[in-house]
Amino acid sequence: MGGRARRARHLDVPAELAAARSGSHRAVARLVSVVSDGGPQLREVAAALADGSGEAAWVLGVTGSPGVGKSTTVSALVTALRADGLRVGVLAVDPSSPFSGGALLGDRVRMGDHALDDGVYVRSMASRGHLGGLAAATPQAVRVLEAAGVDVVVVETVGVGQSEVEVAALADTTVVLLAPGMGDGVQAAKAGILEVADVLVVNKADRDGADATVRELRQSVALGGDARAPGEWRPTVVRTVAAGGDVEELVQALHAHRAWARDHDAVAPRRLRRAAAEVSAIALGRLRQTFGRAGEGGLLDDVAGRVAARTLDPFAAADRLVAAVEG
Amino acid sequence: MGGRARRARHLDVPAELAAARSGSHRAVARLVSVVSDGGPQLREVAAALADGSGEAAWVLGVTGSPGVGKSTTVSALVTALRADGLRVGVLAVDPSSPFSGGALLGDRVRMGDHALDDGVYVRSMASRGHLGGLAAATPQAVRVLEAAGVDVVVVETVGVGQSEVEVAALADTTVVLLAPGMGDGVQAAKAGILEVADVLVVNKADRDGADATVRELRQSVALGGDARAPGEWRPTVVRTVAAGGDVEELVQALHAHRAWARDHDAVAPRRLRRAAAEVSAIALGRLRQTFGRAGEGGLLDDVAGRVAARTLDPFAAADRLVAAVEG
Repeated sequence: MGGRARRARHLDVPAELAAARSGSHRAVARLVSVVSDGGPQLREVAAALADGSGEAAWVLGVTGSPGVGKSTTVSALVTALRADGLRVGVLAVDPSSPFSGGALLGDRVRMGDHALDDGVYVRSMASRGHLGGLAAATPQAVRVLEAAGVDVVVVETVGVGQSEVEVAALADTTVVLLAPGMGDGVQAAKAGILEVADVLVVNKADRDGADATVRELRQSVALGGDARAPGEWRPTVVRTVAAGGDVEELVQALHAHRAWARDHDAVAPRRLRRAAAEVSAIALGRLRQTFGRAGEGGLLDDVAGRVAARTLDPFAAADRLVAAVEG
Repeated sequence: MGGRARRARHLDVPAELAAARSGSHRAVARLVSVVSDGGPQLREVAAALADGSGEAAWVLGVTGSPGVGKSTTVSALVTALRADGLRVGVLAVDPSSPFSGGALLGDRVRMGDHALDDGVYVRSMASRGHLGGLAAATPQAVRVLEAAGVDVVVVETVGVGQSEVEVAALADTTVVLLAPGMGDGVQAAKAGILEVADVLVVNKADRDGADATVRELRQSVALGGDARAPGEWRPTVVRTVAAGGDVEELVQALHAHRAWARDHDAVAPRRLRRAAAEVSAIALGRLRQTFGRAGEGGLLDDVAGRVAARTLDPFAAADRLVAAVEG
């Protein structure tokens, strides 16, 4: 997707990175733009960030269907983390989030309650309706925020389905939000959410049906409705009323998961998998270019045409593409 | 995911395919199982299907969030298509659908109202919480149903986010279901649904808020809230009350889209892109194996470890993987 024109602006990358490390919000914003837009200086920024310095931040992935109150919850969570003295970055990749309203909303509005707080960095990542871009751009944006010295990065994304899996792949702690009612508890269990969530949040917990949803979710977890092995973390189910600022149970659960991960040496393997997924995605994207694109008359079009005509099977067609790459 | 043990059963593929072509529901079921489970005979079945014979079916993708009434709508749609004399296949890849309840429900229950109708084939595709498998297995399952002579294949999948894009990639006509209220109209516009849907259905249209949702969606379409160029199909917005069997507007919209696609030579390019995506996915999966898997101590682990330690940037790491593949 993408492809809309943007003003290309040449950055002095070492100077920008130094400014970001000194706490410049504008420098952070410019560097995140480069890595999320994939502009000509992307590789230069990536190389500059890989100097072995800095501390890894705690990456929280927050996801859930539209309407469950993700942005409200993230805002209340940021307030709570700030009260603990933590520096916080928010990457909003949810196209329906007020944080990432794109051209519709100015930066002031996106920043919301945190516009005047120097310890909070909020950046939207325009996914342009194509969540595939998230996997590639988000880890780089996290690194920019790490360079700026944030302690926690909250990655907010929309979704039921593939996007939880993506969020889980890039987060240290994955939070899935649900709203009471609508059989969400049962749906969640069936949709594989238990397999990726570290913390399940029933938001709007002052509404009818919240108790039933919490109960269903806890039963599903207790019954092993998830696919985790014994000794692994089992999802915590908590209640929030984010609109009223009540995210206390969520904050406690997050700290509990973080402590558990440290005690069980679970942090490093997860980060290794995350880096592996990121590098694989970039390498596969490059190998895909070898095939050509659909409609460009290359080898891919040739074999795809025969597959569409049912005269070549897709595995035999793939053999030819692989042979072309391996040359 | 997957990985659960299954009884492997050796099929006489030419005999099964001949039986499927003669209308054997059991042969269709066995062949769909082979292509969806990815067993040892997958390639044999794929090769047998690619003999240049048979007619392409009209592939309808139906998606929407949990609770909007997808399965009810699909069932009512099947009834309507059957009344027109069409032979219909249903591939249910929605893990929350009664059609694909897996071990929870027997085949009879899954078949529902259509259990005794020889002109309807219903098969569930277990996605095991991992929608990535859909892209690879579904086109093969469609080919099995085409061999059995169905005129229409309905692919039902859950989701907000990535899965619509996947459904759109494999369907001739993409249907996105919404329910009234909850700001669905606005959310839909923002979430990029307009970019992939050919037909937008407001189901449960007898409920409060349906008129507002229909109005919002039509405004979004009229205002060019989607990214389609002039001359392209613009999504139709229709109402259904699937629980009462009323899917008349949907059926009309589907036929209108099909007629439009034929008149505008839009069918073949879409199928070419579909085949290209399928073949690419298989080829990339194979190339990925060259890297090794995370945690296996291969080249991928080596470079990912350095990326995680911020001593190597992910693009430079990807360069090494690509060089290893290209030998």
